[in-house]
Amino acid sequence: MTPTPSETDEALATALAQDAVNAMWSRDQAAQALGMEIRQVLAGSATLRMRVRKDMVNGHQICHGGLIFTLADTAFAYACNSYNQNTVASACHIDFLAPGREGDVLEAVAIERSSAGRTGVYDVEVRVVDGHAVALFRGKSHRIKGEVIASFEPPLTSA
Amino acid sequence: MTPTPSETDEALATALAQDAVNAMWSRDQAAQALGMEIRQVLAGSATLRMRVRKDMVNGHQICHGGLIFTLADTAFAYACNSYNQNTVASACHIDFLAPGREGDVLEAVAIERSSAGRTGVYDVEVRVVDGHAVALFRGKSHRIKGEVIASFEPPLTSA
Amino acid sequence: MTPTPSETDEALATALAQDAVNAMWSRDQAAQALGMEIRQVLAGSATLRMRVRKDMVNGHQICHGGLIFTLADTAFAYACNSYNQNTVASACHIDFLAPGREGDVLEAVAIERSSAGRTGVYDVEVRVVDGHAVALFRGKSHRIKGEVIASFEPPLTSA
Amino acid sequence: MTPTPSETDEALATALAQDAVNAMWSRDQAAQALGMEIRQVLAGSATLRMRVRKDMVNGHQICHGGLIFTLADTAFAYACNSYNQNTVASACHIDFLAPGREGDVLEAVAIERSSAGRTGVYDVEVRVVDGHAVALFRGKSHRIKGEVIASFEPPLTSA
Repeated sequence: MTPTPSETDEALATALAQDAVNAMWSRDQAAQALGMEIRQVLAGSATLRMRVRKDMVNGHQICHGGLIFTLADTAFAYACNSYNQNTVASACHIDFLAPGREGDVLEAVAIERSSAGRTGVYDVEVRVVDGHAVALFRGKSHRIKGEVIASFEPPLTSA
Repeated sequence: MTPTPSETDEALATALAQDAVNAMWSRDQAAQALGMEIRQVLAGSATLRMRVRKDMVNGHQICHGGLIFTLADTAFAYACNSYNQNTVASACHIDFLAPGREGDVLEAVAIERSSAGRTGVYDVEVRVVDGHAVALFRGKSHRIKGEVIASFEPPLTSA
Repeated sequence: MTPTPSETDEALATALAQDAVNAMWSRDQAAQALGMEIRQVLAGSATLRMRVRKDMVNGHQICHGGLIFTLADTAFAYACNSYNQNTVASACHIDFLAPGREGDVLEAVAIERSSAGRTGVYDVEVRVVDGHAVALFRGKSHRIKGEVIASFEPPLTSA
Repeated sequence: MTPTPSETDEALATALAQDAVNAMWSRDQAAQALGMEIRQVLAGSATLRMRVRKDMVNGHQICHGGLIFTLADTAFAYACNSYNQNTVASACHIDFLAPGREGDVLEAVAIERSSAGRTGVYDVEVRVVDGHAVALFRGKSHRIKGEVIASFEPPLTSA
């Protein structure tokens, strides 16, 4: 069946998002070293997971808040770079709701709340998979020069 | 020369801060794994450093903002636990000013801005050592039950 | 038809929310002076409106950001006091998305995102009625002693 | 005595700041309606006062947090427009430390913490005059097109 124009647009946007994310991921030493895993990427959104390892625990014997932030910030980064335009964090705010424990698998879901000019606002919720909420994060993005992938070729779509 | 009572109080507070920080540090797997170094701790303040390693770089080839946050958050944690009362982060805000690069040594200086009841506000500035400002961080702390060190013995002071 | 127990609970919660809000409103000189109007209150949520008057415009000839914040903060206050337990703002964050103009009617919708112990997190979106988004606000609430209404009598429900 | 070049620069910057602030103030209906008073303006900083009037009190019988924010936000606005380049608030964060009461005179002191490109970060502290701290505010500014004053003429300096 022939897709409608808006289905084609959405499929192209998703394909672009996935290509942009793959290009970023290959260079993202930090996310890889922390064992993050990309679960889903769409235009303007991203879902990532990270298991709380023994070397992620702080002096109170719970997951270091900085690493919970880092997971949320990474989901934010993949969501706001999903349009293949280089975009960086300008400011972020996080509310910590409950601790994460060693062995927990944390999931961060980032969604776009606003986009205007070169600025966007994204919300990220971090939860223990199948469990309680851990943190609420809000990030402000700023688009800079350049593209995430040097040359993006839209995939062939059956028409 | 005999110290004045306020000098003695300050020396005791500093000694307590350093003992609390040493107790936290021994359990702080995350800060150790990230190669952080404690430079100074006083009652209500802390200075930490971290070198930006190859595995701390993100998809834009600059230091992952999450790890800049983690350094600031760790300085905040040592500053707000320096009174030897278990204290956790309730919320944090960070403004990113300029990137950090691989090889840069970042320094975070945390100071107490306000303290009332179980709540405190701390400001942290992150800079490249001998260089530009990288981020401004503000954290809200919340005191919970318990002490950082099981039993604190005030050091002998010459009198 | 006899309501189910959960319908009865919800009706009671809504009635309590409305009584608490009425009690607060009668004392809320600031919201009244700014011409705010309460449109809806439920347990954990509130919707308010405010028309941008001539005396609400700033030096750039647009609605003063402080008054956009004040509208959002008021919606937040009514939402977090809707359980009839005195609750105050601990910290708030606002992202300004687009200006409001003289004569615009702004609507703020506050919803509860998290509640644990004495602390809650609320999101408020401010929009021009039937128009664009103006601001995104997130507030952290802290429950203190006392009730909003001195004595609350649950309304009679037909059963 | 002939001023040094840097004294002349500073005097010019201060004069420009005061002219820009005067131009803004004449249009700032909101700040005037709230009875604010400008105490001092320098390049990148501003000090304002506001007395908590009867019509500024909220449902908890304390100064409405939104109006504390509005005072801080106004000091921020005058500080970041003091270079005579139109500048608006992009995002703000406030921590409430202690209540203000009817009759209290609140003072907000705004200072520049960072400036790069079109973006600045300003800190504002709100206190009861000769009393306790009420709130800590941090604002992010964004420079837009245009100047605050249509035509600025540097004052004559004796040389």
